[in-house]
Amino acid sequence: MKEKVVLAFSGGLDTSFCAKYLSVEKGYEVHTAIANTGGFSEKELKTIEERAFKLGAATHATLDVTKEYYEKSIKYMVFGNVLRNGTYPISVSSERIFQAIAIIEYAKKIGAKYVAHGSTGAGNDQVRFDLTFQVLAPEIEIITPTRDMTLTREYEINYLKDHGYEADFTKMEYSINKGLWGTSVGGKETLKSDQTLPEEAYPSQITKNDGELLTIDFKKGEICGVNGVTFEDKIEAIRAVETAGAAYGIGRDMHIGDTIIGIKGRVGFEAAGALLIINAHKMLEKHTLTKWQQYWKDQLGTWYGMFLHEAQYLEPVMRDMEQFLESTQQNVTGTVKIQLRPYSYTLIGVESSFDLMKTDFGEYGEVNRAWSADDVKGFTKILANQMKIYYNVQKRNEK
Amino acid sequence: MKEKVVLAFSGGLDTSFCAKYLSVEKGYEVHTAIANTGGFSEKELKTIEERAFKLGAATHATLDVTKEYYEKSIKYMVFGNVLRNGTYPISVSSERIFQAIAIIEYAKKIGAKYVAHGSTGAGNDQVRFDLTFQVLAPEIEIITPTRDMTLTREYEINYLKDHGYEADFTKMEYSINKGLWGTSVGGKETLKSDQTLPEEAYPSQITKNDGELLTIDFKKGEICGVNGVTFEDKIEAIRAVETAGAAYGIGRDMHIGDTIIGIKGRVGFEAAGALLIINAHKMLEKHTLTKWQQYWKDQLGTWYGMFLHEAQYLEPVMRDMEQFLESTQQNVTGTVKIQLRPYSYTLIGVESSFDLMKTDFGEYGEVNRAWSADDVKGFTKILANQMKIYYNVQKRNEK
Amino acid sequence: MKEKVVLAFSGGLDTSFCAKYLSVEKGYEVHTAIANTGGFSEKELKTIEERAFKLGAATHATLDVTKEYYEKSIKYMVFGNVLRNGTYPISVSSERIFQAIAIIEYAKKIGAKYVAHGSTGAGNDQVRFDLTFQVLAPEIEIITPTRDMTLTREYEINYLKDHGYEADFTKMEYSINKGLWGTSVGGKETLKSDQTLPEEAYPSQITKNDGELLTIDFKKGEICGVNGVTFEDKIEAIRAVETAGAAYGIGRDMHIGDTIIGIKGRVGFEAAGALLIINAHKMLEKHTLTKWQQYWKDQLGTWYGMFLHEAQYLEPVMRDMEQFLESTQQNVTGTVKIQLRPYSYTLIGVESSFDLMKTDFGEYGEVNRAWSADDVKGFTKILANQMKIYYNVQKRNEK
Amino acid sequence: MKEKVVLAFSGGLDTSFCAKYLSVEKGYEVHTAIANTGGFSEKELKTIEERAFKLGAATHATLDVTKEYYEKSIKYMVFGNVLRNGTYPISVSSERIFQAIAIIEYAKKIGAKYVAHGSTGAGNDQVRFDLTFQVLAPEIEIITPTRDMTLTREYEINYLKDHGYEADFTKMEYSINKGLWGTSVGGKETLKSDQTLPEEAYPSQITKNDGELLTIDFKKGEICGVNGVTFEDKIEAIRAVETAGAAYGIGRDMHIGDTIIGIKGRVGFEAAGALLIINAHKMLEKHTLTKWQQYWKDQLGTWYGMFLHEAQYLEPVMRDMEQFLESTQQNVTGTVKIQLRPYSYTLIGVESSFDLMKTDFGEYGEVNRAWSADDVKGFTKILANQMKIYYNVQKRNEK
Repeated sequence: MKEKVVLAFSGGLDTSFCAKYLSVEKGYEVHTAIANTGGFSEKELKTIEERAFKLGAATHATLDVTKEYYEKSIKYMVFGNVLRNGTYPISVSSERIFQAIAIIEYAKKIGAKYVAHGSTGAGNDQVRFDLTFQVLAPEIEIITPTRDMTLTREYEINYLKDHGYEADFTKMEYSINKGLWGTSVGGKETLKSDQTLPEEAYPSQITKNDGELLTIDFKKGEICGVNGVTFEDKIEAIRAVETAGAAYGIGRDMHIGDTIIGIKGRVGFEAAGALLIINAHKMLEKHTLTKWQQYWKDQLGTWYGMFLHEAQYLEPVMRDMEQFLESTQQNVTGTVKIQLRPYSYTLIGVESSFDLMKTDFGEYGEVNRAWSADDVKGFTKILANQMKIYYNVQKRNEK
Repeated sequence: MKEKVVLAFSGGLDTSFCAKYLSVEKGYEVHTAIANTGGFSEKELKTIEERAFKLGAATHATLDVTKEYYEKSIKYMVFGNVLRNGTYPISVSSERIFQAIAIIEYAKKIGAKYVAHGSTGAGNDQVRFDLTFQVLAPEIEIITPTRDMTLTREYEINYLKDHGYEADFTKMEYSINKGLWGTSVGGKETLKSDQTLPEEAYPSQITKNDGELLTIDFKKGEICGVNGVTFEDKIEAIRAVETAGAAYGIGRDMHIGDTIIGIKGRVGFEAAGALLIINAHKMLEKHTLTKWQQYWKDQLGTWYGMFLHEAQYLEPVMRDMEQFLESTQQNVTGTVKIQLRPYSYTLIGVESSFDLMKTDFGEYGEVNRAWSADDVKGFTKILANQMKIYYNVQKRNEK
Repeated sequence: MKEKVVLAFSGGLDTSFCAKYLSVEKGYEVHTAIANTGGFSEKELKTIEERAFKLGAATHATLDVTKEYYEKSIKYMVFGNVLRNGTYPISVSSERIFQAIAIIEYAKKIGAKYVAHGSTGAGNDQVRFDLTFQVLAPEIEIITPTRDMTLTREYEINYLKDHGYEADFTKMEYSINKGLWGTSVGGKETLKSDQTLPEEAYPSQITKNDGELLTIDFKKGEICGVNGVTFEDKIEAIRAVETAGAAYGIGRDMHIGDTIIGIKGRVGFEAAGALLIINAHKMLEKHTLTKWQQYWKDQLGTWYGMFLHEAQYLEPVMRDMEQFLESTQQNVTGTVKIQLRPYSYTLIGVESSFDLMKTDFGEYGEVNRAWSADDVKGFTKILANQMKIYYNVQKRNEK
Repeated sequence: MKEKVVLAFSGGLDTSFCAKYLSVEKGYEVHTAIANTGGFSEKELKTIEERAFKLGAATHATLDVTKEYYEKSIKYMVFGNVLRNGTYPISVSSERIFQAIAIIEYAKKIGAKYVAHGSTGAGNDQVRFDLTFQVLAPEIEIITPTRDMTLTREYEINYLKDHGYEADFTKMEYSINKGLWGTSVGGKETLKSDQTLPEEAYPSQITKNDGELLTIDFKKGEICGVNGVTFEDKIEAIRAVETAGAAYGIGRDMHIGDTIIGIKGRVGFEAAGALLIINAHKMLEKHTLTKWQQYWKDQLGTWYGMFLHEAQYLEPVMRDMEQFLESTQQNVTGTVKIQLRPYSYTLIGVESSFDLMKTDFGEYGEVNRAWSADDVKGFTKILANQMKIYYNVQKRNEK
């Protein structure tokens, strides 16, 4: 009896080659699977399935983990205002983790002895897949034919042709990865340091010029409404914001980051939904959280993002951080108003019953109702104490 | 003989009242002084001096500390990429500290027994002045007539009129504070949470629409050139960037922050120079610094900004942080190219001989020359060790 | 009708004076109250009550909040291994907060218009009482006669005598504050920098010399057994450890800290229970938590302790931190063995089914079963990548 | 012509085997070298040299880098009060780095094509050697025969015998690594979790019982005197403290740590010198540094230690941290008095002209000279502001 291998399959050249190679050369029973975290349309998933069967897959599974991805990752990235390096919403890279989890759980379920993926040896994804697979199923062996053999595109295309499989494998000018939380764009300019992507490299093109207002409602830190319409389904709410922002070319940027493997990497992205939601959320927090809640959220959010990006999602400290982040969101409820315009947007303001600005205590720079001038003098005097002592001691020693 | 008081004098209503009040009611010999950190023009300084003498000042001093402000503050804010709350370059608030230092040093120099300022009891500036004065000259007493007496504008205007002084004290719709590192705009919308400033509230208006390229050169972290022109004088370089960006309305935003006195405060600002320089500098660092250098710069930069904002500039840990920040800038040399357009800009790329991307080691996601697929497999295996052990122990305990 | 004041009453000279003063000079109806967090014996509480009535208190309340103090503070200080400055378990200072909360809640309950305490103007306790009172009941006015009037001991004693009250108010050589989580000792040597307390200044004296074994059991981070005996009541378990350690003079040290008001303060303490429990707990965590769980616990634990010490217990971020800390304790279950001896102790080892050392993966420095020499070579190669690139770029620039 | 290999040689079984193996089986010209960071005596170094030549080494070099180790590592570990996990002074592990640097610099100097070391595949040292070698000399190939072949002791002994080399290779009950900054002890109990090392396992035995006073002088953070005797040579000063403490069995403990390779490791150590110096230094800092200087020193010190331990000494951020740490030491000058007794010690006090306690401002809990009761009331009122607003808003929302 043939041994089972589960292959993480996208329908692209590398995984198509793997499907054929694992079956023909290795003699495995190949079970292809694709884990959808919200980046694939029904039609794309259908095409992928057809390709799998055409390549001789014993079975093909479409694993929809969009909801799980939101509940276990996006939600906390919003709570933590996670923008790696201050710019990148960890779009596709966070999705990889949940795809890896879905694939390995599926492999365990169908009793596969092997699991295969098509990542190269030069990127982050190989670490995300390998590490997640090993931690969750140390008993399942990982196979990565394309990484191990470093084949050319021509070789793979010819191999497939020789084994009766042909498809459109034209190399795109840019490699595009579409996801629910953003789309990454790599190629040409991103391989150098001194140029940025041209307009036409971005999948979304600017279609509106006049500008418009957008409102986002949050309840305990989670998006729950867009432009006054309530959304039960958070995924739909995210898509609505994405659509609104993409029409203005909002959310495009270039991420220059330190990869897990130590080299610098540069990748373009467009993520109107993620950026508008995170920045609106952050502004609502500026009004509803205390100074130190914001400070510690920044600290933990930075690491939550770093760990997620660097394949450490399963590290137990991540669960502890999630508890912290969730606890901070009790009062993060309200509406944020945003002005959209081509390439950029302005956060206009917030409306929240938990707004710490809406008090009778005083108005910054204008009126002090809850304290007197003498209170501030006393405050400043005590606040100065240690520095006064320090300079006093300094002076004494200088004599 | 009358006792000397040094009054921090801006020519506005509050400090004009103070000048007269301290002389008439208190019988002091009033020495007015203004510390310029780069926000005042020659003409403005001249007007202020004239007003001082008209109000009966014994002497008036214009203290130019622009260079000192750059060397002791702006330089480090750029090294640390200091943006409070992720947005605000601590514009006018950092200038206050250096104004306070200049004023108190002047008071010591002329042997004044008192020092006076016109800050209200509801803002941050009172703490900045009081604290700096106390720490550097605990022997000099601080007087703040307007804060202590909470007088109306009408009362002050009439008092001045009764004592023979009249000037144009029409209340502006917005209170504007111009500085070298940015201009703050407060009033109306900034007192509420749900609106932003209208276009016309900003001192700079958009005058260009076509977009243009801007380049900024850095040497060891400091700006040294703009659009190919070398600047010996950093102040002039900053002004050149400011001028370029302001024509596009770049650098406008609203800061919602936690004041030193615990209330939330909201203030609009425009700071094209600060934002373009800091963000260009940060991008250059993404290419030239290691992951952990960037991480620790963020940590210290955040606190450097917090302390500067909260009147703690004289805390000795600030000098220690400056040493750290300076040490990190050895390789932050190169040129950053920026596309300007109305309301926003794109960081196009960098050119630097210290760029860690320009190597023969490999290209992110494309080629690995300095390591093999097996190296990454080994790396990931060891990286997974602790998590594998953790989940192994978990499973054992679940049985 | 007289207005009610609740007086935090300890039976000492200052609060005895306050009781009489508030009634006689101010004409209030004085309701004394003492909040016990575990530091007072039944007998002491009885004596305090008698003194209160003898001083003419309208009512006297003994508020037992020991259990609440454990559940809301000690528990989290153990979870966070909180030792301020690396030494001090924030003994009496954390109890003050819960005493303040109990007092102000009681004042609200009985409808008092005023609340009074006897803290001086030179310590931390005044801030703890004032701040907690204000935050929880801004409508109740705070009165502090002894702080405001700075009276001598003689004056107070004579005043009380004149009003018919006498008690033993002999000034002790050392001021001792006994609490459940430790006892503080101040006076003489603690007011200078160069001496420590003599043996006889400590309330507990060494009574054993031979050394003995102590075991402490933890369940999800909480103490649940001592020397093999299960304790339902955590308070009793703490007292059992305290008794065992105190017989050896364990847990004595001197805390030199930065007070809330900016001056340096020095205080001796003995806290055998707190130190043995925290250090045993920490050792159990070294075996059961991952590296990053321990790192982040340290970060948050440090601030949890700092905030607790500095009267910020009610800051909402504290609740968020508690959620984090609680989440980390899932596997902190096991037994720690300790060798006690005069003045010191040795943590012998732990026994836990969650011990991450007890695996088949390998033994440090001895055997590697779960990975190969090549895996570590690959790991190290990738780990070195960024530094190799950095030095490569350095060399290129030196040419 | 034979190709040169430099072998890091200790004279032990593994490196003796390597010496023979590299020459006989690989045909290399073997150049042995030992880098002394202060842990080896003249006599031991002589023996090692004799063994090297007896094994046929072409040359043997004794590289003394003790001074460099102090200047580039110990100094900063003291500045940073580096105790990993709160206990372990990173004794032998920090020395490895400087041994690795010395070895690879030597290999470059003599034009070796290869460098070899004898570390196993289960510990931290392999990473320290491999990584340092690669970063400083990527062109030199690393050879590790014992790690790669996993041979038994018997095999190695017989192989050496067969090739005419015999020496005393009796396996010690405990593996002892002596260093300037501490001695590590591994074996038996350290391989399990529930026992500690017996007295006799420690190289130093207790020889004094009566207790004695020890004083340590510091100048700008560096040790400069012991018991009143000035030391020009810091190494000698460290040895003097070590000798004093070791006679009392001070500085023994067990380190349970997370190794670089992810498993937990346990190792005993004795480090009287390191612990007395670091803790005395830390106490002096509690008196001479501000709260925030101490806070940030802790933050950076923790990471400095972590990176040093984990082979990241060459990471450029370490140089930046050193600048910070050095800057903080300006006022860390004074004398610390310590009471030594069997197994433990008490920090008695400090004498320093930079002591921030020695002021006229006030005495903690006793007298406030530089501020009034009203000042503290104002301070507390403003400090409470944000919490008051927060609870006010909470209450409003509960209605």
